[in-house]
Amino acid sequence: MPRYTAPTKDMQFVLHEVLDVTASDIPGYDELEADFTSAILEEAGKISAEVLAPLNPVGDTEGCRLENGVVYTPTGFRAAFEQVKSGGWPGLDMPEQYGGQNMPYVIGTAVGEFFSAANQAFTMYQGLTHGAASAILAHGTDAQKDLYLPRMVSCEWTGTMNLTEPHCGTDLGMMRTRAEPQDDGTYKITGQKIFISSGDHDMADNIVHLVLARIAGAPEGIKGVSLFIVPKILVNDDGTLGARNGVAVGKIEEKMGIHGNSTCVMNYDGATGYLLGEAHKGMRAMFTMMNEARLGVGMQGLAQAEAAYQNALDYARDRLQGRDVTGTKNPDGPADPLIVHPDIRRSLMDQKSFAEGARAFILWGATLIDSAHRKDDKAADGLVSLLTPVIKGFLTDQGYDMTIKAQQVYGGHGYIEEWGMSQYTRDARIAMIYEGANGVQALDLVGRKLAQDGGRHVMAFFDLVKTFVKENAGQDADYDRAFIEPLKAASKDLQAAGMYFMQNGMKNPNNALAGSYDFMHMFGHVCLGLMWARMGKAAMHALANSASDAAFYETKLATGRYYMARQLPATKLHLSRIQSGADTVMALEAANF
Amino acid sequence: MPRYTAPTKDMQFVLHEVLDVTASDIPGYDELEADFTSAILEEAGKISAEVLAPLNPVGDTEGCRLENGVVYTPTGFRAAFEQVKSGGWPGLDMPEQYGGQNMPYVIGTAVGEFFSAANQAFTMYQGLTHGAASAILAHGTDAQKDLYLPRMVSCEWTGTMNLTEPHCGTDLGMMRTRAEPQDDGTYKITGQKIFISSGDHDMADNIVHLVLARIAGAPEGIKGVSLFIVPKILVNDDGTLGARNGVAVGKIEEKMGIHGNSTCVMNYDGATGYLLGEAHKGMRAMFTMMNEARLGVGMQGLAQAEAAYQNALDYARDRLQGRDVTGTKNPDGPADPLIVHPDIRRSLMDQKSFAEGARAFILWGATLIDSAHRKDDKAADGLVSLLTPVIKGFLTDQGYDMTIKAQQVYGGHGYIEEWGMSQYTRDARIAMIYEGANGVQALDLVGRKLAQDGGRHVMAFFDLVKTFVKENAGQDADYDRAFIEPLKAASKDLQAAGMYFMQNGMKNPNNALAGSYDFMHMFGHVCLGLMWARMGKAAMHALANSASDAAFYETKLATGRYYMARQLPATKLHLSRIQSGADTVMALEAANF
Repeated sequence: MPRYTAPTKDMQFVLHEVLDVTASDIPGYDELEADFTSAILEEAGKISAEVLAPLNPVGDTEGCRLENGVVYTPTGFRAAFEQVKSGGWPGLDMPEQYGGQNMPYVIGTAVGEFFSAANQAFTMYQGLTHGAASAILAHGTDAQKDLYLPRMVSCEWTGTMNLTEPHCGTDLGMMRTRAEPQDDGTYKITGQKIFISSGDHDMADNIVHLVLARIAGAPEGIKGVSLFIVPKILVNDDGTLGARNGVAVGKIEEKMGIHGNSTCVMNYDGATGYLLGEAHKGMRAMFTMMNEARLGVGMQGLAQAEAAYQNALDYARDRLQGRDVTGTKNPDGPADPLIVHPDIRRSLMDQKSFAEGARAFILWGATLIDSAHRKDDKAADGLVSLLTPVIKGFLTDQGYDMTIKAQQVYGGHGYIEEWGMSQYTRDARIAMIYEGANGVQALDLVGRKLAQDGGRHVMAFFDLVKTFVKENAGQDADYDRAFIEPLKAASKDLQAAGMYFMQNGMKNPNNALAGSYDFMHMFGHVCLGLMWARMGKAAMHALANSASDAAFYETKLATGRYYMARQLPATKLHLSRIQSGADTVMALEAANF
Repeated sequence: MPRYTAPTKDMQFVLHEVLDVTASDIPGYDELEADFTSAILEEAGKISAEVLAPLNPVGDTEGCRLENGVVYTPTGFRAAFEQVKSGGWPGLDMPEQYGGQNMPYVIGTAVGEFFSAANQAFTMYQGLTHGAASAILAHGTDAQKDLYLPRMVSCEWTGTMNLTEPHCGTDLGMMRTRAEPQDDGTYKITGQKIFISSGDHDMADNIVHLVLARIAGAPEGIKGVSLFIVPKILVNDDGTLGARNGVAVGKIEEKMGIHGNSTCVMNYDGATGYLLGEAHKGMRAMFTMMNEARLGVGMQGLAQAEAAYQNALDYARDRLQGRDVTGTKNPDGPADPLIVHPDIRRSLMDQKSFAEGARAFILWGATLIDSAHRKDDKAADGLVSLLTPVIKGFLTDQGYDMTIKAQQVYGGHGYIEEWGMSQYTRDARIAMIYEGANGVQALDLVGRKLAQDGGRHVMAFFDLVKTFVKENAGQDADYDRAFIEPLKAASKDLQAAGMYFMQNGMKNPNNALAGSYDFMHMFGHVCLGLMWARMGKAAMHALANSASDAAFYETKLATGRYYMARQLPATKLHLSRIQSGADTVMALEAANF
């Protein structure tokens, strides 16, 4: 069975030596002393490794089942959910007023990586609840907040997000689910929603569905969509549970992965709904929490890559096969371990350098969200809006690729379900699709975010790279060659791509859109390059100050050098594709494919 | 349910307009008139689309089951197998002497693509039989050939290959299965073999296992391994069936995909075996058919990509979502079809340009095998030996990626098993692993094939590209710019990588091996670039001669231009990785990962 060990030490390194969180003026960050975060991370790591990870293959094998309208989760999920709840984990970064612990989002994100890596399908139950609670927090009336939030923050009740319908996913303007206003101010919701993660299950007393629907007479398209709270069981004003609402599970989807999460078809048949936020502004309400939700999905890409990597590493150390061509390493055994072979090294280094770079990138993104929320930092808000599609699209694509590489290390055993490597790939696959398929992320990045606020945020990003380079170049020739020069080159490629879009996208937007996916990936590489340059600097600093664990920092530097030499140059290929424009992409008539 | 339509027209284009098979002096090629091959391909396409493809999801859903020692294939497999047998398909390229039709391998390969695309798990039953029969054909005594081949060529009996053991896959020198010589000249085979495709099933009267084992007292390592024929049911001298042999199915593995094929643990307990070929030369006997087997697996990569692409294309044309930013294309509908969007185009063009390029590459490889076998062409044999790891490794990696891209076109529906796109990815995944994991292909390419016969074959390849460029440059400025120049540049990158290996691999072989995977991929790109240059030339020629179906040839040119502009430049990235050497790859101590 696969194992998972939470990378608490690496998380601490990023929080304290790279991001230096306690030195930040973001409200609440002063409390994030290393001992304090270490205690949280150790505890979260323990429950991840000991409770959630062992249930991961159970969830995959058993899946959820629907019997007489009731959804049952896999064996052990209920007990584990109770344990997570009693530990207060769901409310870690929620307001104290509603029973949360009010910690910064960056800590919730760090813990989220552990939980997701250990068991993505399981963690989604609380993840969706967090998202729904955040929406109520941002847009609910005081009465709605008081009624729902305490029970959602504790996960006594869980939540869902209902957007997709059979005929529309990305294009939600085509939505058909309707909301009929009632005399008492409520609405009757009728329609079918699909792909509803955690749509129903047996782990909570109630489920609070957030449902997008069109109020009768609303404007056509996306501007006529409103958001509703539709509880599975109606809630009395005193918080006690009333009658069953008019919502039922149509079926549980058979999916490629995340079998432990119940992905449901939900049928609303005159269900009572309560308007959340303003009428016809449902999409805007959804968008306010999109940065967080998408960062969370990007984090899942990293999480599965990390978990798969740990097991591939174990296998590469244990499995004896072939001999090191430069000289036998295990003379007493029948063969050397796989890890001696350069091509296995290449694969492991790809995985390791991705996971560590992605971890820093996501935590940095989380600090930007904290800055935006906790000190109303508009610049941070703009920057993280720009980076969100990169975090989501790049990290889930790459994270998925890394699970495939990890699986490949196992050879034939990787293809056998018993070894667990297949599950990592099958679970990771969904992250490239949900919360906006990655092609839509690329469109959001190039079609919307680049030019947002007059292009101010992308300029801010380039300034940030430039400033880093300026402040850190010329002090150490090795560091310059290994980190600064590649970062400068990659950043230059990214700017050249942006320039190409500006010069060619005006006359034909397809020239920009045909390169959007490559742009998202090259942006991701530059971000990870920046993270590695920062981590390399922190590692050098620690070594210069005679840090006790020199091997950790030496390893960090070596891993960074690998990323900069082997991965970052991908920006050149992406640039050349972008600069080839839309002509070859759009040449064919649809009929001639 | 997904559909499959055999690309007969494209196959004909490659056979006749690109490879010009009837003009070849390979014995038997003169019979391959266009009408003749068209009739075969149409018939094979029909059975693929109508019989095999509908069973593909059935095989995936039901899988095989083991009950009381008997393996049952999914519903419908038996009847379909009878149909394939009665059509004479398994013996298409087998000698007439044993009931085959003696057609060139290139035709078997073309038909094989259709069958594999329609149903990979099903087609493996006959594929493994073909492999085992080829081994007996090459190494068996006349008596062995007469006894086994007629029934294997017809698939009345099927075959298997038994190499892997629990503790060794790639490193077969560690093999433990032993063969005790008996007084009557037979052997008693004892040991456990795993991952045995088509290991047991209910579709044939007998199963002929080819088993690698070590004869008592044999030299250590790979040089002490012999190959044995071990029938499931012993065969009397007159060909009638005798007693059950001492071989039993231990279990059927639960795999990520190809559920319709029974992947078995096989336990040999004093089973009677007959030496095939010379004692202690079992690996050599296996290797003689390796080019074919590996080309066949590369073909599976293409086949799954083609099948997945066809469905993604249908979906992109049908699914209405969003509007073309350059102007509405479907004003009467609620949205435009997905195919208007540039990023969907990019994905479809990646898939299409890969599938068509790969098809030409594989058929070219098959003609080299025909030339080697049918006219004892040593140069062709050397060249195809060089290209085999590229065909296997590059085409299965890329083929898999293409199934992932096809699945992504479906958005959330791609993740739902019902739509069938998940199966393409799960089935395609195995081809990167079996018949030598792709890392081993890269090792074979760089560690063995490059330098084989003094590097003669790689020189021959470069000469071939150079000659093509020389003969076809300077006649059409558009063609030069779109095809010739990119091919020259990519070929130059490949040569530079080879040069790097020569200059740096001597002092440290890891400098070559750390770049082996990138080299395999860049070699693959150059091969597809060459194929596209040849196809582009053929298309221009047809257009210049006022071919009736101008749209087909225009499309071919446009697809080729896409590949050359968007995919071929990947050689630069691979070269830069290779030239970064082994230092960053090998920097870490195994303990410090």
